[in-house]
Amino acid sequence: MSEKLILGISGSPRKGANTDFLLQTALDEAAQTEGIRTETIYLRDYEIHPCNSCFACCSDGAEKADRPCLAFKDGMEEIYPMLKECSGMIIGSPVFFGSYSAQTKAFMDRTEGLLRYGRSSYGNALSNKVGGAVAVGGNRNAGEEFTLLAIHYYFHIQNMIAVGTGNTPTPGCYLGGSATTFPQKGRVKDAVKDDELGIKSAKLLGNRVAEVLMMMK
Amino acid sequence: MSEKLILGISGSPRKGANTDFLLQTALDEAAQTEGIRTETIYLRDYEIHPCNSCFACCSDGAEKADRPCLAFKDGMEEIYPMLKECSGMIIGSPVFFGSYSAQTKAFMDRTEGLLRYGRSSYGNALSNKVGGAVAVGGNRNAGEEFTLLAIHYYFHIQNMIAVGTGNTPTPGCYLGGSATTFPQKGRVKDAVKDDELGIKSAKLLGNRVAEVLMMMK
Amino acid sequence: MSEKLILGISGSPRKGANTDFLLQTALDEAAQTEGIRTETIYLRDYEIHPCNSCFACCSDGAEKADRPCLAFKDGMEEIYPMLKECSGMIIGSPVFFGSYSAQTKAFMDRTEGLLRYGRSSYGNALSNKVGGAVAVGGNRNAGEEFTLLAIHYYFHIQNMIAVGTGNTPTPGCYLGGSATTFPQKGRVKDAVKDDELGIKSAKLLGNRVAEVLMMMK
Amino acid sequence: MSEKLILGISGSPRKGANTDFLLQTALDEAAQTEGIRTETIYLRDYEIHPCNSCFACCSDGAEKADRPCLAFKDGMEEIYPMLKECSGMIIGSPVFFGSYSAQTKAFMDRTEGLLRYGRSSYGNALSNKVGGAVAVGGNRNAGEEFTLLAIHYYFHIQNMIAVGTGNTPTPGCYLGGSATTFPQKGRVKDAVKDDELGIKSAKLLGNRVAEVLMMMK
Repeated sequence: MSEKLILGISGSPRKGANTDFLLQTALDEAAQTEGIRTETIYLRDYEIHPCNSCFACCSDGAEKADRPCLAFKDGMEEIYPMLKECSGMIIGSPVFFGSYSAQTKAFMDRTEGLLRYGRSSYGNALSNKVGGAVAVGGNRNAGEEFTLLAIHYYFHIQNMIAVGTGNTPTPGCYLGGSATTFPQKGRVKDAVKDDELGIKSAKLLGNRVAEVLMMMK
Repeated sequence: MSEKLILGISGSPRKGANTDFLLQTALDEAAQTEGIRTETIYLRDYEIHPCNSCFACCSDGAEKADRPCLAFKDGMEEIYPMLKECSGMIIGSPVFFGSYSAQTKAFMDRTEGLLRYGRSSYGNALSNKVGGAVAVGGNRNAGEEFTLLAIHYYFHIQNMIAVGTGNTPTPGCYLGGSATTFPQKGRVKDAVKDDELGIKSAKLLGNRVAEVLMMMK
Repeated sequence: MSEKLILGISGSPRKGANTDFLLQTALDEAAQTEGIRTETIYLRDYEIHPCNSCFACCSDGAEKADRPCLAFKDGMEEIYPMLKECSGMIIGSPVFFGSYSAQTKAFMDRTEGLLRYGRSSYGNALSNKVGGAVAVGGNRNAGEEFTLLAIHYYFHIQNMIAVGTGNTPTPGCYLGGSATTFPQKGRVKDAVKDDELGIKSAKLLGNRVAEVLMMMK
Repeated sequence: MSEKLILGISGSPRKGANTDFLLQTALDEAAQTEGIRTETIYLRDYEIHPCNSCFACCSDGAEKADRPCLAFKDGMEEIYPMLKECSGMIIGSPVFFGSYSAQTKAFMDRTEGLLRYGRSSYGNALSNKVGGAVAVGGNRNAGEEFTLLAIHYYFHIQNMIAVGTGNTPTPGCYLGGSATTFPQKGRVKDAVKDDELGIKSAKLLGNRVAEVLMMMK
């Protein structure tokens, strides 16, 4: 039987830094479950225009062209098929001003054509898939929770199943992986590796995404 | 095969008013799914002391007595077995000061013994069950969303699966049933019956709770 | 000139434990500002019925009797005059299931008569006063932020000025005082005293409430 | 005496559509207060790169060059001086996937150099200024509240004073201007003009921003 894909999405502008690490920690843990494989998309490697709200994704044109976005031909063209293929998704973002990065949001906004309204074959592409979130903040209680809630909101609108860290005592965070670079400065690229509790929460999140995915018929 | 129970919890202090109606609307819709039955608990009918944070639910005593709460013998004694029995739960609350009523929260806080830490046979009683939420506010955008997010937070901590309104276009709200008594005054007991969009969102939520429940192995 | 009062409200059921300590830390810091005095109300010392949503506070009866609540004669009778008198308020709550305790919410819900609708002389009693919040959670990112947001929501509905921790680098939390008993268990009454960052955030919050209060004409 | 500036920031990609209208409604109301003038920035008219998290804004280089961002020379160069000049700010965003648009967030993320850490003369540029928010959603309870909370979070981190709609009964929303294009489709450019309650909330928000601004010493 073919393995089920959990897709990691990193919204960090910095290669190999804290958010990438925390996301990979979650994905690696998910991959411990038999029947799961993972891939990671680093949004910074793609040109992604923000959605211009043209609504063409809901038009006859989108149906005829079978494209989830008619406004731009950019990096999303490579990402869309992977969104269709995956069974689960883990979004990782640094916490900027209390919520996800603009880069993370640009990706989200460009998945409008995957909603119920989408007229191409990508319409409903994410429905009933399992979603998890991880966030890294420069202060300890400084938007990590809010970022996870914001990513959950995205999952709900995509009709996905938003899950948290499962049933382990003292997970650090219930909503998802939550880590901080504090007391080091956010610019220190591996600061989050010292945050044991944050790493624990990311592992739990990864495991839970896999677990619920396998629980679904 | 025995039917699966979705338990409705009404946190409204007012009998037969707007929150009761919206909750019942959601439950009735859920019951349309074959294999689902529903029951409704009106918290106002029970004496429920707020949690005094004694942590006895996590003690040897709780295990020996096999009781999820050693601090109080009150209405929760009747409710606990139903929480164990149910496969899904829909919590309905009026919006008071932007979030759930104190009555709704007192019920939640008293389910500490059902968490992973709970030492009685009620420990983990809600794990992997499906949860949905409905809220009624006196203003249109006045805490309905926040109340639903707050109830979702409860579900996540109980390791439940928090679901929204599913995959229908223009659901009114994605997170759950969301209705308002506006432009009538909140005190008008059936004001919410004029809120078609709110009723639609409650129906969608009820249907989605049943749908996801049936989707779980 | 008479001093301005910042009222502390503790929603913890446990005397002298972590929330009380964090709240007092914030209040003591506020009191460093000349012209400020503080008092602390421990909600557990009062009998406070949850609001029954009778709307009598908005009736002619409330005006005639000049009472902000006609439904109950309980501990709130002592608290109402202090709410009228104060210039600022700091609410402290333990984090229960991701948000404030039922006890904290019961207090809030019973201040309906202080809203714009209130017909007694208590109507608008909190308008333009400055509000701050502190929260203590048993896990590190486990509802502290959400609790602070929920208390802010209360302040906004009361037309108060909700403030955070001000302008210091690495405050730990921007929204208010945020501390955790982790890695000790929540039941350890002075666990929060080991959370330096949490204590820092509470001090900053207290200072900011005083600062903004003095900034208002 | 020179007038105080309230700066409007529109994060809508669509010219002259619903968000622009709602934002202008708020600004026009604010301008009714004597001593207030307003200007509106449409982010779509500027090239704004998302923050690449280089932290140069906190470096000696930023101090020497006296520039709040060393990474990009783009449209923000024109906007930064207006952020320094203004006394208040109203941010308007369409609701995309439950929160602000990526465009709105890119603007926010690029104001990192205006924080307490900023080493140029733009450091602390927004501190103690008054902030308000308006949001337009395609569904009624579909992220409007969450978007306003997310914008408030931004204000708190910038040490601004986040205000809501003030003290009028039935404001529609307490947190800010909240309107919906429903039951018309979001693509209808003037759909929000039919939402009387949403327009009311935007006017109240504009008025409140001006009111609190004038209340500050």
